[in-house]
Amino acid sequence: MGVRLEQKEQTRERIIDKTTQLVQENGFVGISTKDISKNSDVSQGTIFLHFKTKINLLNTILYSNVDNFEKDLIEQCNANQSTDNFVRNFLDAISLYEGILSRAYKDYSYLDDPLQKQLDDLDTLIKNKFYDNIKHNRSTNLNIVDTFTLIDAFISQIKQYLLEKNVYTKANSIIRQRRGRITKLYRMLFGEES
Amino acid sequence: MGVRLEQKEQTRERIIDKTTQLVQENGFVGISTKDISKNSDVSQGTIFLHFKTKINLLNTILYSNVDNFEKDLIEQCNANQSTDNFVRNFLDAISLYEGILSRAYKDYSYLDDPLQKQLDDLDTLIKNKFYDNIKHNRSTNLNIVDTFTLIDAFISQIKQYLLEKNVYTKANSIIRQRRGRITKLYRMLFGEES
Repeated sequence: MGVRLEQKEQTRERIIDKTTQLVQENGFVGISTKDISKNSDVSQGTIFLHFKTKINLLNTILYSNVDNFEKDLIEQCNANQSTDNFVRNFLDAISLYEGILSRAYKDYSYLDDPLQKQLDDLDTLIKNKFYDNIKHNRSTNLNIVDTFTLIDAFISQIKQYLLEKNVYTKANSIIRQRRGRITKLYRMLFGEES
Repeated sequence: MGVRLEQKEQTRERIIDKTTQLVQENGFVGISTKDISKNSDVSQGTIFLHFKTKINLLNTILYSNVDNFEKDLIEQCNANQSTDNFVRNFLDAISLYEGILSRAYKDYSYLDDPLQKQLDDLDTLIKNKFYDNIKHNRSTNLNIVDTFTLIDAFISQIKQYLLEKNVYTKANSIIRQRRGRITKLYRMLFGEES
């Protein structure tokens, strides 16, 4: 890459990084180009050069995070893993993205339709992943409707934790904090009947 | 009441009713005094005469709805009811307030601290009500931590339904639509072990 192209790429990355931080702190709603400019230390003109509109920048951030999370899930969470490994891998993956996911769930009703749809698709992917792993591991039979009823409740609980979360820093990951409770709930819902 | 006082009261009620509708449709965030004035068919000055600030009006609406919901819960949901009656009464009560509750949960992170606290207290009240009823009805022992773990998941599922809800009208109550699923989940979580 030429020096100028490299600089351009670095500026783009900085805008994305700093705006991601801002979004995690204050949400997608009500964020201003002025805040973004101040935080990234680039002019508002430069932001528009890279992203055309503020919405475009915000959508890029949400889209790429959800996309990466989906890729991690597909790579790391598989039907043929033991239940414990599967849940651990799932919680590891989600905790990497929880700052943005938490915000996305909080601001869901204010997001554009395609982004809402992307979050809905993520939801479906997660539930199917869980179903496949449960089906693979559980010897006693739960029918598919009952299983999805319980998976829905389990995922709702995790979403609720993300919604309750106030400020995101790596040090105060809510998924890490509640890991014990989440794992316990999982065992209560899907453990073998004793 | 004198005629003028009565008219004043009617105006206040109309502002509250019409703003409640608006909030249910568009949320607490981004609602303008202009919209409220247009919808209630009173001047912006009259609104401020009754409520001092827009925030004050919005807080009044949320506060009184949650307060009434709590009163209904306390009156209608009791420990010594059968599980079926308890759940039915709970769903009847929540469906009366779901338009506002749905919005309140959606906009939670944008609400004032006292209102967030009021919603947290509502949460605690609901969970304790469930606990007391379960304790009264369930012959086999679930310890208190496990019971609250399951109650949390159950309530999270209901909140999730309210969060997913798009437009509120009495005809499309999400609680009524999902009543079967909610009741089923309840039985799966708290039914007697077979």
